[in-house]
Amino acid sequence: MNPKALHKISYGLYAIAARKGDKINGQIANTVFQITSKPPTLAVSINKGNYTHEFIKESWSYVVNVLDRDTGMIFIGRFGFKCGRDIEKFDGIKHRLSALGNPILEENSTAYLEVRVDEEVDMGTHTIFIGEVVDADIINDSEPMTYAYYHMVKKGRAPKAAPTYIEE
Amino acid sequence: MNPKALHKISYGLYAIAARKGDKINGQIANTVFQITSKPPTLAVSINKGNYTHEFIKESWSYVVNVLDRDTGMIFIGRFGFKCGRDIEKFDGIKHRLSALGNPILEENSTAYLEVRVDEEVDMGTHTIFIGEVVDADIINDSEPMTYAYYHMVKKGRAPKAAPTYIEE
Repeated sequence: MNPKALHKISYGLYAIAARKGDKINGQIANTVFQITSKPPTLAVSINKGNYTHEFIKESWSYVVNVLDRDTGMIFIGRFGFKCGRDIEKFDGIKHRLSALGNPILEENSTAYLEVRVDEEVDMGTHTIFIGEVVDADIINDSEPMTYAYYHMVKKGRAPKAAPTYIEE
Repeated sequence: MNPKALHKISYGLYAIAARKGDKINGQIANTVFQITSKPPTLAVSINKGNYTHEFIKESWSYVVNVLDRDTGMIFIGRFGFKCGRDIEKFDGIKHRLSALGNPILEENSTAYLEVRVDEEVDMGTHTIFIGEVVDADIINDSEPMTYAYYHMVKKGRAPKAAPTYIEE
């Protein structure tokens, strides 16, 4: 088996954000996908060790912020390689709160989709959070960042907790 | 809610193939994603009305054939818009059978991943088939087809049974 074949699967790049009490947090994820069209449902795979996992478990909802292709590496590093246990990720980042209290990015984002979680699937190291899209809008006409673009053009990498991490 | 925000989610394009007894069949899907890295697990969302759904339910495994970017529309139409109840989809198409008997494309494909299904999640119109990658290889260095490329450059569309279908 050649695990590099997994690199041929295409993804976007997203900041998944949620609320826990009066705290908000977010993290980078690439493994977001639509399950059904009627009703529109989405799924995301989140590492159980990630701080955002706790937040989604509590708010039972999350926002998928679709990063635009020009998002800088400092922004991605803040959300993808730092932990919300150590820093307030949304400090100084333009955002607003959804009706459910989850943060919607107002910078570096081309669209958002808010999901009310109906089901979680325990996958060992990760949980798949599945639910109906309850709010969504396009923010601007920017191209979404793809995972391929992030790797090739931005020279980005996957953190160890990512579903798509491969040991080199 | 603006359902067009769903179009900002990025995907690849795949021919999902499986076996039922001595018959083989395949269909186009875009909603494939990795769930965990250790062990490597994949998920795909398949419409319950699709013929391939029956095949995966029987073989409890499937191959994700990663289409390359130059795959022609005739090929995609054959696998995506025709039904295996009416035609033998693999007739005249270069392929071989995996150890589990699932078809691996030997044309228009840049990589394949075979999944042994461990879990299914009933999502109303669709089933998510989740399982461990038991075989995988890169076939060539071609770029994978992305769903965005299929829509923009190839002028492709989504069939009604697709998770990402949006009524215009």
